[in-house]
Amino acid sequence: MASILLASGPNLNLLGEREPEIYGRDTLDELVGEARAVAEANGHSLDHVQSNHEGEIVDAVQQARNRCAAIVINPGAFSHYSLAIYDCLQALALPVVEVHLSNIHAREEFRSKSVTARAARGVITGLGFKGYELALRYLAEEK
Amino acid sequence: MASILLASGPNLNLLGEREPEIYGRDTLDELVGEARAVAEANGHSLDHVQSNHEGEIVDAVQQARNRCAAIVINPGAFSHYSLAIYDCLQALALPVVEVHLSNIHAREEFRSKSVTARAARGVITGLGFKGYELALRYLAEEK
Amino acid sequence: MASILLASGPNLNLLGEREPEIYGRDTLDELVGEARAVAEANGHSLDHVQSNHEGEIVDAVQQARNRCAAIVINPGAFSHYSLAIYDCLQALALPVVEVHLSNIHAREEFRSKSVTARAARGVITGLGFKGYELALRYLAEEK
Amino acid sequence: MASILLASGPNLNLLGEREPEIYGRDTLDELVGEARAVAEANGHSLDHVQSNHEGEIVDAVQQARNRCAAIVINPGAFSHYSLAIYDCLQALALPVVEVHLSNIHAREEFRSKSVTARAARGVITGLGFKGYELALRYLAEEK
Amino acid sequence: MASILLASGPNLNLLGEREPEIYGRDTLDELVGEARAVAEANGHSLDHVQSNHEGEIVDAVQQARNRCAAIVINPGAFSHYSLAIYDCLQALALPVVEVHLSNIHAREEFRSKSVTARAARGVITGLGFKGYELALRYLAEEK
Amino acid sequence: MASILLASGPNLNLLGEREPEIYGRDTLDELVGEARAVAEANGHSLDHVQSNHEGEIVDAVQQARNRCAAIVINPGAFSHYSLAIYDCLQALALPVVEVHLSNIHAREEFRSKSVTARAARGVITGLGFKGYELALRYLAEEK
Amino acid sequence: MASILLASGPNLNLLGEREPEIYGRDTLDELVGEARAVAEANGHSLDHVQSNHEGEIVDAVQQARNRCAAIVINPGAFSHYSLAIYDCLQALALPVVEVHLSNIHAREEFRSKSVTARAARGVITGLGFKGYELALRYLAEEK
Amino acid sequence: MASILLASGPNLNLLGEREPEIYGRDTLDELVGEARAVAEANGHSLDHVQSNHEGEIVDAVQQARNRCAAIVINPGAFSHYSLAIYDCLQALALPVVEVHLSNIHAREEFRSKSVTARAARGVITGLGFKGYELALRYLAEEK
Amino acid sequence: MASILLASGPNLNLLGEREPEIYGRDTLDELVGEARAVAEANGHSLDHVQSNHEGEIVDAVQQARNRCAAIVINPGAFSHYSLAIYDCLQALALPVVEVHLSNIHAREEFRSKSVTARAARGVITGLGFKGYELALRYLAEEK
Amino acid sequence: MASILLASGPNLNLLGEREPEIYGRDTLDELVGEARAVAEANGHSLDHVQSNHEGEIVDAVQQARNRCAAIVINPGAFSHYSLAIYDCLQALALPVVEVHLSNIHAREEFRSKSVTARAARGVITGLGFKGYELALRYLAEEK
Amino acid sequence: MASILLASGPNLNLLGEREPEIYGRDTLDELVGEARAVAEANGHSLDHVQSNHEGEIVDAVQQARNRCAAIVINPGAFSHYSLAIYDCLQALALPVVEVHLSNIHAREEFRSKSVTARAARGVITGLGFKGYELALRYLAEEK
Amino acid sequence: MASILLASGPNLNLLGEREPEIYGRDTLDELVGEARAVAEANGHSLDHVQSNHEGEIVDAVQQARNRCAAIVINPGAFSHYSLAIYDCLQALALPVVEVHLSNIHAREEFRSKSVTARAARGVITGLGFKGYELALRYLAEEK
Repeated sequence: MASILLASGPNLNLLGEREPEIYGRDTLDELVGEARAVAEANGHSLDHVQSNHEGEIVDAVQQARNRCAAIVINPGAFSHYSLAIYDCLQALALPVVEVHLSNIHAREEFRSKSVTARAARGVITGLGFKGYELALRYLAEEK
Repeated sequence: MASILLASGPNLNLLGEREPEIYGRDTLDELVGEARAVAEANGHSLDHVQSNHEGEIVDAVQQARNRCAAIVINPGAFSHYSLAIYDCLQALALPVVEVHLSNIHAREEFRSKSVTARAARGVITGLGFKGYELALRYLAEEK
Repeated sequence: MASILLASGPNLNLLGEREPEIYGRDTLDELVGEARAVAEANGHSLDHVQSNHEGEIVDAVQQARNRCAAIVINPGAFSHYSLAIYDCLQALALPVVEVHLSNIHAREEFRSKSVTARAARGVITGLGFKGYELALRYLAEEK
Repeated sequence: MASILLASGPNLNLLGEREPEIYGRDTLDELVGEARAVAEANGHSLDHVQSNHEGEIVDAVQQARNRCAAIVINPGAFSHYSLAIYDCLQALALPVVEVHLSNIHAREEFRSKSVTARAARGVITGLGFKGYELALRYLAEEK
Repeated sequence: MASILLASGPNLNLLGEREPEIYGRDTLDELVGEARAVAEANGHSLDHVQSNHEGEIVDAVQQARNRCAAIVINPGAFSHYSLAIYDCLQALALPVVEVHLSNIHAREEFRSKSVTARAARGVITGLGFKGYELALRYLAEEK
Repeated sequence: MASILLASGPNLNLLGEREPEIYGRDTLDELVGEARAVAEANGHSLDHVQSNHEGEIVDAVQQARNRCAAIVINPGAFSHYSLAIYDCLQALALPVVEVHLSNIHAREEFRSKSVTARAARGVITGLGFKGYELALRYLAEEK
Repeated sequence: MASILLASGPNLNLLGEREPEIYGRDTLDELVGEARAVAEANGHSLDHVQSNHEGEIVDAVQQARNRCAAIVINPGAFSHYSLAIYDCLQALALPVVEVHLSNIHAREEFRSKSVTARAARGVITGLGFKGYELALRYLAEEK
Repeated sequence: MASILLASGPNLNLLGEREPEIYGRDTLDELVGEARAVAEANGHSLDHVQSNHEGEIVDAVQQARNRCAAIVINPGAFSHYSLAIYDCLQALALPVVEVHLSNIHAREEFRSKSVTARAARGVITGLGFKGYELALRYLAEEK
Repeated sequence: MASILLASGPNLNLLGEREPEIYGRDTLDELVGEARAVAEANGHSLDHVQSNHEGEIVDAVQQARNRCAAIVINPGAFSHYSLAIYDCLQALALPVVEVHLSNIHAREEFRSKSVTARAARGVITGLGFKGYELALRYLAEEK
Repeated sequence: MASILLASGPNLNLLGEREPEIYGRDTLDELVGEARAVAEANGHSLDHVQSNHEGEIVDAVQQARNRCAAIVINPGAFSHYSLAIYDCLQALALPVVEVHLSNIHAREEFRSKSVTARAARGVITGLGFKGYELALRYLAEEK
Repeated sequence: MASILLASGPNLNLLGEREPEIYGRDTLDELVGEARAVAEANGHSLDHVQSNHEGEIVDAVQQARNRCAAIVINPGAFSHYSLAIYDCLQALALPVVEVHLSNIHAREEFRSKSVTARAARGVITGLGFKGYELALRYLAEEK
Repeated sequence: MASILLASGPNLNLLGEREPEIYGRDTLDELVGEARAVAEANGHSLDHVQSNHEGEIVDAVQQARNRCAAIVINPGAFSHYSLAIYDCLQALALPVVEVHLSNIHAREEFRSKSVTARAARGVITGLGFKGYELALRYLAEEK
């Protein structure tokens, strides 16, 4: 049974608390729970890491290359400047789907560009928690 | 039974023929067939329009406001400059998901920005035909 | 009795429905009605065309060169990118007034620049339906 | 009987003398005379101020808040950099119409953007003296 | 006997009328006549389409892929923003030569860049009607 | 007993009236009164000048060089373009603190850059009237 | 007795050593000592964290939301690119004052813009250690 | 005997005091004295105006059109943003030479561009007081 | 019998050797031979100069003004920065056609703009050796 | 015997695995081994730190100031945005050589600029492992 | 008797022929003759070099360092891109005055910036041949 | 015994004289002597060319392709704009190392980008004469 890494970037641990009109009222635990259910329903286990430290996201992604079959990542604010995360996603042979809760195209200018997204196979943005579920279904069904 | 509009922008009628290493070898008919199956499995019918004419996309989106429950749109090249399509998507009260077959963030600079995406609830990019299926499932399940 | 062409760009047929806090609650029919009244009061007839198709606006403007004395145009979203409309307005010898319902200088950055306006004699922006009336009075009285 | 302020920015006192092929051969006195006639025909009096001093335009606009019903302003060159005038127009509750004699969209790049126009309800540009008359009619009839 | 598509973008139907100091005094019919003569002298027939509608140019180019041996295109104003035309030219396996009557490098800034030209094999600009003749000779002789 | 110049730029005389949700409901007189109390409590007198005229601000700053020990300045809109004020602040040997009532970093793009601030020893922004008090305390205690 | 968080970004532990002509000769310990004295004089305790790790600053700011009444932060170099810190400051309901020892407006271009400052109530820059004292007095007295 | 206007912009009254390593140690009075001597030696009188007020420079330039034969102007900081001065210089038929004491090409980026210089016949920069003398000689000898 | 100057810029002497997948395998001698044949077939002689020295290209173009009837120039890399060549082409009254072997619009960004092309009557790009032949035919037949 | 710090930024631990066509097939251990041999041959010891955490690189550089004689650093992706590393390199009095395995000038635009390199004495880029050896020899021999 | 170098850049040998409405009808020989007369009247000899080769201008400027007292240079088109000339002017200890016949501030955008001017003591632009005379007088009288 | 070309761009013949605080006090002869010693110690001969003429550098690099095994080049100011040198370096199959005496990343903005460096295998910058020695050692040992 292959594992999928779910990596959550900075401030996603505040989910449910931070600007709920944008990010919703559910918490990260609920999100991970739902994601795990979808993964398991598709015959995968789910590894989750949340960190406010860019380096820990890089470490987790690197370690995934030997133990996971795919990655779902929401790099949060790191999407917009972390070339280090871009580089490690690019260095792996795993399929990656980047997810954003809100529609980054419709927000502040500085949020509309994701440098990490260039290393992903695809991106789902603006569909809330459902976006994670769709990403996981894609990874489970597609490859 | 509510209908969902699937709108396909310019050159998508060439699917299967045009740069298959980027867009795959399946045709638009196959894509629409798969999308219809997903929609119907979720209790919706599917209206499809493909056009190389910006104005026909605008017309179709406008007409959808009285007869559809939601829109899945791949504006193709229009994504990058059609403020007319942006305006009509913005004018409607319907949920919209924009879909791109390839990952626009990873391609030429001029493809990385979508002006129409600002009017969508969310965007799915880079997941091929699967992206349409996910968009339809989202719309069926979410609202 | 000379005719004046009133050309309305994409989504103006949604007037009264689309973002009424910006564009008002009256419909395009009412606008055309009022415009016709002003034109006729000044001894002109009014030709009206509304289209979501850039090419139809170009066609209409081209045909006006042999049958109209002046043009009032609200190119809507086309203002911001249609060099084709700019070129055909530029090619005519008729006086043109461009009208916008809302004040484009006070809205999103991408709306503050009009490429078609360079081919007009003048521009009236932000004065709602009244802007059309003023444009028609100008054309009737001035030349 | 309410008063309307007509404020004229720098070098407008040279009207009739300065680049007549762009600005026409009539003088500022003639323009003010025509504007006053229109205002009075609509039951208003007209206060006029012309100054080459940005500060005097700001002073005049500020004083208008207690004694005028509306403002017609041609900030001339100040349109392109005077954030001080922008701020005082923005601070008032009066309807403002900005007028330019020539079509600023069709001239040098640095003239195509007006920072003061963002604080106006609307803008009339390129219609010569007639633009003032239309602005006054708008203010008289609309509110 | 293979056919060559000659596609003419918006406002080229005004040839002879529009800014003759730039575009010359001959008409589109004369241009097509001359082009047809050159094509036939080289053993080809000539299909001509002129449209002010971007979508019709895209349609014509798409249809050419099954019935023409080559394309000569003057996209007019569409050169500067129609990614839809760029995409369909790119999608075909046919040799394409883009032609402009005037030298776009020597005109307004916004005319100096052609997005469609990236999909062409070559570009001839500034040589008037002769440019079409040269393009046809190239296509006849080269491949 | 040394004097401190408090210089207030354009529209600050509207304090209490202008956009009170941003600038508060207290008036300039109250602000100057509070500032004078702080200055006097620290053994200084306070000279105050408010002007909508850039030149008067320059004059006042120049005269301060012979009669004041320090300057607190809120150049208002002039912050964003008055190189003349920048030059005269730069020419003096006096310590200068620039103060803004609102946080300029969090407002419109054009307000986030202050050209005059480069000539100041420091800047306090976003702390309302309190910002003036802190600036005066700094100048009294530090040098 | 409420606590105030004082957060110091990268390289501030080198204070007294690093470019003393810009940052002064006193050390971070002295700065914290002075800040604590001011806080305690105003009835608050002071929590201090210094880190060269962006993630630790984010962690500390997040934890402050349950145990502090306000934040004084000098994000150092992180000011110019850490959207992660911006996001967590923005997510809190606490008043924040950003402090810089030197006047960032008067230094290298890349230092003149602070992305984190947008999430602060106010900013004090260029007043050295005194800036911290003023920030603390503001927070103690104002709210 | 024709008169020449010498117009000096903001802060030039500080000459001899302000940054003497850039602007030298002589005063404006000395500069005007030297300039007057050169003008008179060439059979002209010299009118001098110095002002920190943009509007006064505009007024003086406007008045020169009826009483002076030529203008030597050092707009100081106004060079870089005063479109009002540019407009009035442009409106006159008099020969204008713009002078800067220091070499603006070799200083800060924002000083390297002069908007007023576009309206001058020529510019002399970097030659100190001598630049004025050369400008006056040019005007005396050339026209 | 009039002469035509064929001027070849830097590195064109490496033709056949340099990146043959872009520039082809034929040599400059072959190109000049073919060009001479075309010129002579049209009753002209051909002067050829190739140089890696910008100054020699300028010299050759200047000398052509007295002894040639037209110029065909491939400035190579100089196209993108040599304002000196632009100036001398602009200074002549001769018809000039600029030729590039590859399609500069489809290559690196820095190659897509030609500063020298602004001084040409027309440009042929992307048609290989054939481009020279077409240019020569144009010059022979047209003027 | 003085020590030299060799600091390796994010993803350099993947050497030999990550994009071997760019970075080669040897591992970081081999690189460090070779570097240590060179250092020791020159009478120095080598401290090595690799981290995916920006903060750890900053910490290591700071600690080097008391225990190392020089620094060789490959900041990897951090080169392009870590002002924190730039600041700490700048704060030290040690000679620093920045090394990149690949030629950053020849890669993606965003890799061609190194903000950290401004704080180095020199930079060696594109010479693979050999670049480290050369940097160490330089530091050993030069100072 | 000291010598002054007069260096003339590309195409200045066409003076009198090239765009006489901009550059006048006199030739370079006449200009040099006039310049020599002024130099000799001031007790200097004049060395003149004109070249279309950037390298020859650099050579001449370098040689001037041992045999000339000053340099008057009109780099022509090289002004706008020759960092090599900038570097050699910067390397010398001689006073340099850059001269342009036309007012570069009032012409095409690409002509308004001179990179070589940064290395000059001063610049005279727009005063025609007279500009050279003034430059020589300055150098003779000043130092 | 293979030869290595050492090519030195403009003004490098002034070494020891030009801005010695940046470039050092040793001369080009000394530099070439040291370089030759290193080359010979590694079994190569050294060809040296210095020129202020871009064309001569291009010529020398072209000739190297048949007689040298590698190139060390310091293009000096040409680094920043000579696409001609870039093109010829790119056209060769020889390994190239670009060397700069000073650290171009730490100097003026316009020096931080090297267009020629894109064609090199690697770049060594900021290490003075030593940089040449390292480049030669690399070429000798590596290939």
